[in-house]
Amino acid sequence: MIVIGIDPGLSTTGFGVVEADGTRIRPLEFGGIRTSPGAVLSARLGKIYKEAEKLFARYRPQAVAIEQIFFSSNVKSAMRVSEAKGVIMLAAHRAGAEVFEYTPLEVKMAMVGGGKAGKEQVRFMVRSLLSLEEGIDSTHASDALALALCHLHVHVLRERLKAATEGKD
Amino acid sequence: MIVIGIDPGLSTTGFGVVEADGTRIRPLEFGGIRTSPGAVLSARLGKIYKEAEKLFARYRPQAVAIEQIFFSSNVKSAMRVSEAKGVIMLAAHRAGAEVFEYTPLEVKMAMVGGGKAGKEQVRFMVRSLLSLEEGIDSTHASDALALALCHLHVHVLRERLKAATEGKD
Repeated sequence: MIVIGIDPGLSTTGFGVVEADGTRIRPLEFGGIRTSPGAVLSARLGKIYKEAEKLFARYRPQAVAIEQIFFSSNVKSAMRVSEAKGVIMLAAHRAGAEVFEYTPLEVKMAMVGGGKAGKEQVRFMVRSLLSLEEGIDSTHASDALALALCHLHVHVLRERLKAATEGKD
Repeated sequence: MIVIGIDPGLSTTGFGVVEADGTRIRPLEFGGIRTSPGAVLSARLGKIYKEAEKLFARYRPQAVAIEQIFFSSNVKSAMRVSEAKGVIMLAAHRAGAEVFEYTPLEVKMAMVGGGKAGKEQVRFMVRSLLSLEEGIDSTHASDALALALCHLHVHVLRERLKAATEGKD
């Protein structure tokens, strides 16, 4: 199963591709989609869509896990993030992937078991779980990998619960 | 010159197509793109994109005027609106149209000359300017037409200003 995590943003959208095979999880690719602040807004959205489309075509993920924000101190920037998020969800839909949204709190809970964990702890867990010896340059890519791992965690739990209630566990 | 105004929304996106020919302005089409609340989010965005794409292909507008919101009492719903707005701006970009954003205040100023005007006054002006004898059923469509008219107003003023500063007026 291939899951792509997405940390959406107008300037930088982080992405992280992970493959789960039984209990083994390995990173396939991670990085960022960048747009120029000098370009017009609709062209920036056009670039994000095109790059997301290529990424989804390359890996054909079953699931795309994307960050959901419900409140923000900066509403204007949150809306720009949401515009970018809209075009990425569109690309995922058109690529046949199911889209799942997770809040930063859900990611923290899944990764370190506590909502009070710092961002550094989450990043440390991402590196450990994926056996990445070196740090990940981009915090956006790291956050995207955390979203993908969060989805796998929640997904595995759900499947087990389903099996248990069906009396097959 | 053809301008399409868009009042974005996840459940209903209002649109209004107007054609300006010298001082004559006429409405070509207006209505709404609706999605089912029961459908998954990414599929709803998929529908909005597809319908917007068809609309822009049908009229090939030079400009798309879309509502810009900077604050909201309901941040969650504002973010859903922004996601829908993102895919519409993407469709406009891919159709070769320039995208312009106007706040509700700018629309009011352009339509009735005062920011304190009520929504009813704006709607009355839309009907008057477009010589629509009957009311417009959908407030979304009416707001979209107001956005298109706001753009024409601002555009004409800008062109005149440009001509004046170039000493051609």
